[in-house]
Amino acid sequence: MELLGSVSCSKLNIQYPFYFYIFAHNNCKYNKTVCMYTYDYLLDFTTSFFMKIGCNREEAVITAKVFLAAELRGLPSHGMIRIKDYYELWKANRINLKPDIRIIHETPSTAVVDGDGAIGMIAATKSMEIAIKKAEKVGSGWVSTRGSNHFGIAGYYAMMALEKDMIGLTMTNANPLVAPTFSVSRLLGTNPVAVAVPANKQPAFVADFATTPIARGKLAVAEKKGKKVYPGYVQDNEGNPSDDPTILKRGGSMLTLGGDYEHGSHKGYCMSAIVDIFSAVFSGANFGPFVPPSVAYLPLLQKKVGEGTGHFFGAMSIDAFQPADQFKSKMDEWIETFRNARSAPGKPKVLIPGDPERACEERIMKEGISIVPAIASDLKEIAEDLGMNFMIQ
Amino acid sequence: MELLGSVSCSKLNIQYPFYFYIFAHNNCKYNKTVCMYTYDYLLDFTTSFFMKIGCNREEAVITAKVFLAAELRGLPSHGMIRIKDYYELWKANRINLKPDIRIIHETPSTAVVDGDGAIGMIAATKSMEIAIKKAEKVGSGWVSTRGSNHFGIAGYYAMMALEKDMIGLTMTNANPLVAPTFSVSRLLGTNPVAVAVPANKQPAFVADFATTPIARGKLAVAEKKGKKVYPGYVQDNEGNPSDDPTILKRGGSMLTLGGDYEHGSHKGYCMSAIVDIFSAVFSGANFGPFVPPSVAYLPLLQKKVGEGTGHFFGAMSIDAFQPADQFKSKMDEWIETFRNARSAPGKPKVLIPGDPERACEERIMKEGISIVPAIASDLKEIAEDLGMNFMIQ
Repeated sequence: MELLGSVSCSKLNIQYPFYFYIFAHNNCKYNKTVCMYTYDYLLDFTTSFFMKIGCNREEAVITAKVFLAAELRGLPSHGMIRIKDYYELWKANRINLKPDIRIIHETPSTAVVDGDGAIGMIAATKSMEIAIKKAEKVGSGWVSTRGSNHFGIAGYYAMMALEKDMIGLTMTNANPLVAPTFSVSRLLGTNPVAVAVPANKQPAFVADFATTPIARGKLAVAEKKGKKVYPGYVQDNEGNPSDDPTILKRGGSMLTLGGDYEHGSHKGYCMSAIVDIFSAVFSGANFGPFVPPSVAYLPLLQKKVGEGTGHFFGAMSIDAFQPADQFKSKMDEWIETFRNARSAPGKPKVLIPGDPERACEERIMKEGISIVPAIASDLKEIAEDLGMNFMIQ
Repeated sequence: MELLGSVSCSKLNIQYPFYFYIFAHNNCKYNKTVCMYTYDYLLDFTTSFFMKIGCNREEAVITAKVFLAAELRGLPSHGMIRIKDYYELWKANRINLKPDIRIIHETPSTAVVDGDGAIGMIAATKSMEIAIKKAEKVGSGWVSTRGSNHFGIAGYYAMMALEKDMIGLTMTNANPLVAPTFSVSRLLGTNPVAVAVPANKQPAFVADFATTPIARGKLAVAEKKGKKVYPGYVQDNEGNPSDDPTILKRGGSMLTLGGDYEHGSHKGYCMSAIVDIFSAVFSGANFGPFVPPSVAYLPLLQKKVGEGTGHFFGAMSIDAFQPADQFKSKMDEWIETFRNARSAPGKPKVLIPGDPERACEERIMKEGISIVPAIASDLKEIAEDLGMNFMIQ
């Protein structure tokens, strides 16, 4: 269980497969608590894996970088654990490794991209590149993408804009687990939003958050510990408040940010709906309850209302609004004002969105990336299947 | 108190001055529960009032329409009650009725507008018009506005895009009452977001929500009734959870959507921060704790980090993403899917954002607009001051 500590540096969404995996494999054959790797070792392995199953080098590198970014930023639920998911999707012929990712509709500042069933990281990176190019020409670029798959961490693509001195925005829809206010139907995913804004002396503002009060993973943790959960996280199949972390297995659903109507869950529902509409209705992807599962062990849905999973990307040149230096200095002032806010006694300092993930990244780049033995074991098995090497270390 | 019922049709933010006003004037001299007016009567009066104090006809009509839209949509806290606020701001020489509202920086898809101290409704309407014009030319338009004032209901400007078959987005920062997660400093306003998306057979999706769990007005209601409030709404000046609706008077603060960290308040903080940055850092308005008060009885702040209040506006042509008809049919399908969701037993039907306000508008257009006698009395006094008429009816 030690690795669970490593995710606590993130305030963001921890997805359930990570925890599930740990709990399912706590008797694994490797007598280690964690296996430690360098960034470069895992990047090389992940790149080689994706090339081995059929990606070209460029696309394999793109994908590997996003997987590793999740590990570095304290979101291992979106990192190495998902290589097996993609391996199984590939074996089930449910991803396209030779995609023709293309713009199918555009204006000078907007586009719809068809991901052609690609790995989500590739469709997303190429879509964000298109948004950035449009922002270079006309001040801002907005891309809605269909025919994609799970793309890892939303913040990665928003942060691509920072390198170009731009503001970045990412949204994606996701597998339906969440009921809108008053409902018991699972119509929405945890539908995250990420926004990255560059500063000058201060590190960038990087918000990356799900539109639910908690991540699915926290339910798995509570289940393992035999604990109840707070009201406002989940409800049963009749819409009664529940403190049972296993309720999703019996027709329950997660709630939107706010929890219940009295605490503003309809506002979380609005946010989540906006993410779904921008990602899927704009692009012609599957929306709401029709988003396809991102793992091969769940069957494809019978009804399809579009193509694959949908994302939304935005890039705004900072000199679209003000001269760049002036903008970045003002952003410094904003960050310093919030960083210097008075904390409640006994509470941590006020955080600027992105602070915890950056601290985590610095620590992990020094200390190495820790992988749960059960996941390392799976990676080794996958490597052997494909005639590759993966060391347990 | 009967009028309070009329706001229950809205799920949106009810600001405190409305309730405060009712409670402060419950012994008013008019022996009526409410005074009833037609839309046209109040529109004419409001237009005449703003012309009388110095607006030209065009700008007076713009302003009056936004005031009346708040009444129609069940948000009287942003309606006729605020005429007195603007009257007092005018007498205190704190608004500019001959503003030179102009673009001070632009690209084909973006602009910064300086509102020059104008009435918020005028600066906002002109800014949204600029966003729409840019969207007509290059697919989308994004405008950040500084030097403005309280602009009424955010949804009004987002809905301006609907008339042009566009998607609209509005944000604004607001007077600081809200503490970010872990803090006791009031650094943020209730910072609303509005998004309007056109459909075909279905009415448009119109989300308009504050980034706090509740509106300030609900605290005033609880105070009047001698009731406590739910945890997660407010905290005391040391950051302890509080159920005391009067706590803001003793250094307490409101909390962001989510309430506390365990329920995701850091996600509400992210949303609110994004609204503040897009509205004020992009434009050079006052951000966070420096947003000037929107009423004359509160003094201007000593420190200024920009010009006036800030807003952010977006318009996206629907054929920026797909042929318009195809887009609108897909949006119908989205709305129908959510409208047909299964409700929890005993709970209302699942609402599409915008449903409650539209129902309210239809009802009020038939029945007339009800004004609290104390407010009608104030309007009559203002009218007499200015040599105008306002009937108590």
